Amino acid sequence: MQQVAIIGIGSTEVNEHWEYSLRELAGFAALAAMEDAEVSHVDGMFVGNMMSGTANRQQHLGAYLSDWIGMPMIEGVRIESACSSGSAAFRAALISVASGELDTALVIGVEKMTDVTASEISTELSTAADADWESDQGVSFVGLNALLMQRYMHEYGWQKADFANFALNAHANGAGNPKARFQRAITMEQYEKATMIAPPINIMDASPVSDGAAAVVITSTDVANSLRKHPIVSIIGSAASTDSITVHGRKDPLWLTAAYESAKVAYGQAGISPSEIDFFELHDAFSIMSALSLEACGFAERGKGPRLALDGDIYPSGRIPIATRGGLKARGHPVGATGVYQIVEAAEQLRGEAGKNQIENARIGMTQNIGGSGSNVITHIFSNL
Amino acid sequence: MQQVAIIGIGSTEVNEHWEYSLRELAGFAALAAMEDAEVSHVDGMFVGNMMSGTANRQQHLGAYLSDWIGMPMIEGVRIESACSSGSAAFRAALISVASGELDTALVIGVEKMTDVTASEISTELSTAADADWESDQGVSFVGLNALLMQRYMHEYGWQKADFANFALNAHANGAGNPKARFQRAITMEQYEKATMIAPPINIMDASPVSDGAAAVVITSTDVANSLRKHPIVSIIGSAASTDSITVHGRKDPLWLTAAYESAKVAYGQAGISPSEIDFFELHDAFSIMSALSLEACGFAERGKGPRLALDGDIYPSGRIPIATRGGLKARGHPVGATGVYQIVEAAEQLRGEAGKNQIENARIGMTQNIGGSGSNVITHIFSNL
Repeated sequence: MQQVAIIGIGSTEVNEHWEYSLRELAGFAALAAMEDAEVSHVDGMFVGNMMSGTANRQQHLGAYLSDWIGMPMIEGVRIESACSSGSAAFRAALISVASGELDTALVIGVEKMTDVTASEISTELSTAADADWESDQGVSFVGLNALLMQRYMHEYGWQKADFANFALNAHANGAGNPKARFQRAITMEQYEKATMIAPPINIMDASPVSDGAAAVVITSTDVANSLRKHPIVSIIGSAASTDSITVHGRKDPLWLTAAYESAKVAYGQAGISPSEIDFFELHDAFSIMSALSLEACGFAERGKGPRLALDGDIYPSGRIPIATRGGLKARGHPVGATGVYQIVEAAEQLRGEAGKNQIENARIGMTQNIGGSGSNVITHIFSNL
Repeated sequence: MQQVAIIGIGSTEVNEHWEYSLRELAGFAALAAMEDAEVSHVDGMFVGNMMSGTANRQQHLGAYLSDWIGMPMIEGVRIESACSSGSAAFRAALISVASGELDTALVIGVEKMTDVTASEISTELSTAADADWESDQGVSFVGLNALLMQRYMHEYGWQKADFANFALNAHANGAGNPKARFQRAITMEQYEKATMIAPPINIMDASPVSDGAAAVVITSTDVANSLRKHPIVSIIGSAASTDSITVHGRKDPLWLTAAYESAKVAYGQAGISPSEIDFFELHDAFSIMSALSLEACGFAERGKGPRLALDGDIYPSGRIPIATRGGLKARGHPVGATGVYQIVEAAEQLRGEAGKNQIENARIGMTQNIGGSGSNVITHIFSNL
C-alpha cells in the first residue's frame, strides 16, 4: 500500500448551531477542507455520523452530502461506530487511498445534536451500549462511566479531586481555540463545586452535547509532496479494535483492551514507542476515560493515569500534552464529528497552525477515538517528518 | 491490489422473525458463512444495516456483533447507505482485503424491521430521501417510485400490465428458494387484481418489509485457491456511484446515471460487456426499478426495459435472467441485508448450489444494489472461472 497524507483540513466552530442544518455544517467543513487542499474534486466521500437518522430524520449521508457539495457522481457512504464514527470514516478513506482504489478522498465528520431534546439525545447515545443488557436496564453512558470511575477510585485509591486537572487542562487549552465550544479556563473551585450528574462524575468531568462538522482531504504522500502547499502530514499508523460492548462483559473493566490493542498495532506500524509521541488527542468524553486511555497507550502504569494530570505532564509544556485544543471536554463532543476534529487538530499542530495552543517542535501526534464505553477504539499516528 | 474471492456464504430465511432478535439473526448468518468457509476467525467485520437505531434501538453494530459471535477484538464497523448498505459494507471489506490491510473479512447484512409498526418503518425508510425537499413534503418511497413509473409509462407508452412479468418471474423463482419470503408463484390475474398502493404501483410491484441476515467471508484468491473447498467465486468488478439524492434534482429522472456509471466501471474492471453476464441480481424494490436498472446497465435500450419482461428474456432460461432466487420482490427486502443476499445468491449460482433456481452454465454474475430512488448504486461482478 502507498503512504497517505492529509492535504486539506476544515472545521466549523463547535457550538449550538441553531441557525444551520446538518447539511450546511457538513458543507462548511467539507468545502473549507477542499479549499485548503486546493482541489475542486475528490473521488470518494466517507461520512462519520452517529445519530442523524433520529436527531435530523436524515440518513443516507453519502448521497445527501455529495449532492450538497456539488459532486453527485462520486462514491459516498456513511460509517457508524458510535462515538468513534469519525475515525472509522477516516480509516475507511485511508485504506481506499492507500490501496490505490481512490486517488483522493474526503472525510466528513458531522453531528447536529441540538435539534431535539436532551432526553432524546440521551436515548440516542444509549444505542451505542447493549440495548438488552445495558440501555433497557436504565443505565446511561454517564452512568456507565460513573460506575467505572467509582470502581477505579476504590481500586487504586484516588480521590475525586485528583482528576480535576483533566478538566482544567482541557478548558485552559479551549481558551486558546477560537473553534472550541467553551473558550474559558476554569478554576479548581469551579471544578469542586460543579453540578453532580452521576456520582462521582460532575458536569466538569463530562463533555458537552454539541453541533459541529470537521473534514479532511487525503491523497498519496507522493502527490502531496508534489503539491507542497503545507508541511506534509503523513499518516504513519492506523489501527482499530473492538471489545465486549458491555462493560460487565470484560474481564477487567478498568483496562481498555481495545485501546491497548489498537495503539500497539499503530506504534508497530509507525515504528515508534509512546515516548516519541509529542502530543495525544485522546477521547476525554469523561475524565475517567482520559486516565484509562493514557494507561492503555503506555503513558502511565495501570492505575496511575491521574498522576500525569496531578503532575502537569498532560499540560502543553508537559511530557505528553493531551486535549491540546480543548479536547472533547472543552472543544466539545459532536459525536460522529469528534474523531475528525481530533485529526484536524493533530494536523494543525503538525503544520504549526495551532495558534495559542501550538506545541513546540511537534513532530509526531497521536489521536484515539473511542466508541461506546471502550468497545470500539481507533488509533492514528501522524508525522510531519 | 490482490484479487479477492468469496470463501463462505450464509443466510437466514427472509421472514417475519418474531422469535429472533437482530443479534440472533446476524449471528446465524455470520456463523453459517464462517462454517461454510471453514474458518474460526476473521480479521474484520463490516456490517450493512440501515435502521437498527430506530427499529431495534441498537446502533454500534460493529462492536455489538463481533462481541456476539465471540470475536470481540477484531475491527468492526457499520456502513450505511440506505438500501445499498449491504453492498457498501461488502465493498469496504473488499478494499480492505484487496489492499492487504486485512487477510480475511466477514460481511454481514442484517435488518430486523418487524419489531416496530409499519408506519414507523415507513418513516424510517423515508430517511433515505431528502428530509427537507422530499420526506417532509409527505412523499414516501412508494410515492417517489409511483411518480417515476407514471412518468415512464407516459413517456414511453407502456401499459401497467407490461410490467407484470417482473413480479411473475420473481415469484416463480421465489417458489424454488427455501429461504424466500414468498415461496409461491402468482398469476397474471393476481397481479392485475392486486391491491393498489400508490397508482400505478400495486402490492405486486413492491417488495415486502422483512427480517433477515446474510453473510459472506472473503479472502485473497490465492488463499481461496489453496483451500479449494468450493468452486472459486472471484470478485472481478466493484464500483459505486452516487446521484442527486432527490428525484427532482436529476436532469432525467428516468435514467439511473449512478447505475450506468457504476456498471460501466465494473464492466471495465472485469473486461467484459453486458452480453457476457449470465444472470443479474438487480434491485427490484419496485417493478419500475427493474426496467430502469436493465436499461442503465446496457441490457435494454432507453425506454425499452419492459420489453425484456414481456419477451421472457428475464426468465431463468432467458437472455438475462434476473431475480433468480426471487429478488427483492419474492425473496424479500430486509433493507440493509439485501445487498449481501444478492451476493450470497450470486455465489450460490456460481457454485452450482442454487437448487431449483440454478442457471445452467452460470459463469459470470452481476449484482446491483440501489440506495434511495437511484441515488447510491453499487455494482459487483463475480466469476467462477
